[in-house]
Amino acid sequence: MTTHYFEHPLNEKTRIYLRVEALLNQLDVAAKFSDDMQHLLFYRSLFDLLEIFEQIQLKSELAKDIEKQRLAYRSWLNFEGVNQDMLQHVLYEIDAVHSDLMGAERFGQSLKEDRFLSAIRQRFNLPGGSCCFDLPALHHWLHLPLENKQADAKKWQSTLQPLSQALKLWLKLTRETGHFRTIQASSGFYQSDADDANILRLEIPMKYGVYPMISGHKNRFAIKFIEFESGQASVANIEFKLAVCN
Amino acid sequence: MTTHYFEHPLNEKTRIYLRVEALLNQLDVAAKFSDDMQHLLFYRSLFDLLEIFEQIQLKSELAKDIEKQRLAYRSWLNFEGVNQDMLQHVLYEIDAVHSDLMGAERFGQSLKEDRFLSAIRQRFNLPGGSCCFDLPALHHWLHLPLENKQADAKKWQSTLQPLSQALKLWLKLTRETGHFRTIQASSGFYQSDADDANILRLEIPMKYGVYPMISGHKNRFAIKFIEFESGQASVANIEFKLAVCN
Repeated sequence: MTTHYFEHPLNEKTRIYLRVEALLNQLDVAAKFSDDMQHLLFYRSLFDLLEIFEQIQLKSELAKDIEKQRLAYRSWLNFEGVNQDMLQHVLYEIDAVHSDLMGAERFGQSLKEDRFLSAIRQRFNLPGGSCCFDLPALHHWLHLPLENKQADAKKWQSTLQPLSQALKLWLKLTRETGHFRTIQASSGFYQSDADDANILRLEIPMKYGVYPMISGHKNRFAIKFIEFESGQASVANIEFKLAVCN
Repeated sequence: MTTHYFEHPLNEKTRIYLRVEALLNQLDVAAKFSDDMQHLLFYRSLFDLLEIFEQIQLKSELAKDIEKQRLAYRSWLNFEGVNQDMLQHVLYEIDAVHSDLMGAERFGQSLKEDRFLSAIRQRFNLPGGSCCFDLPALHHWLHLPLENKQADAKKWQSTLQPLSQALKLWLKLTRETGHFRTIQASSGFYQSDADDANILRLEIPMKYGVYPMISGHKNRFAIKFIEFESGQASVANIEFKLAVCN
């Protein structure tokens, strides 16, 4: 790979959204159970999600944010020069995920009530705690036919569908607001103002051998590039691409 | 699969050994980095191992146990009816792993001193904390060529080689002491005496739909079978195989 793709959230809520997106992706990949170890990733991702659901009121946060997007898109209705067909399509999508979201259970509710999952969850975070003697029920489950295991995964994942759809749409629309521009970081540093931004997206050529350390908030941010090999701040002039997404 | 293979440790130290064995196996599988997610399993297993190394003096425990095996095998030297060639071979193996073990650093020492690993480890246990913005250095590393990543894994794993060899040998010799016998558990229950045993090994036909809950210690143990579907104690007569390993 010649480019390092990178995203940084500019507020705590978006930070959680991006973590949840990553965990839902991990669930999707692992739910194939295509090797002997993928169940470890599957259950870890599922239990990480449950932990996040216990920490924040994700459903109401997301509903508010989707509602904000709906209002923003509605304000373009009958606006000259705006493609009204596309706009209607987006508004239709927003209505659909919002309504599914409002009709959904509290995220993770039925997963938390699942006897099998609850029994596993208690010991899963022990170091090396997924051995058969720590989790005998899980090890029985592992010996079941692949179709049964995939069906269980599907059943559990389906309870997260309203979350997944709403989050995907919100992130898609948010990412679409940003446009990549080429930027020069002088002596490995760049800072700028933003206007109520949620996510920074970066494309950094691998040839520089650096990764970004980003600080800031929705109205101002700074990017410092660090040399991967030395762990020190880079003093090189670095040309990278940046999109600021609202 | 028609048989549920199961192992249960009868003391705390063996419990740790079996967990460490499972983690080392996970490392081996994940170190191929053959899909986008295997690095998660790799680092998780590595950090779980480091946590175990911090909790117990694994090196000295294992050295003592290997020494015990050496004495036991030596007592068969010049014993009529014992294959002396095979015995010499085992003693040679024991000497080799024991000497490597004694010459090794404290387990995990160089991994703990590795700047890159230490930086990742801090955040890895956050739920969903392996996102690029949480671990920017890791995400740079993920974009490196596969050969580089595999070489890093090899380098880290090589520091655990003395542990891995010694543990494998101890577990192999321990497992070999047990011989599978067919057992009837009446009304889903079986108990027996043992003589300073370390590991119980079970082969349970899947047709019964049960998994074992085992309690006990090196001199006595009880096996209760639980129905997977209901989570209740089974009252069926169950025929399974059992090996008690010393």
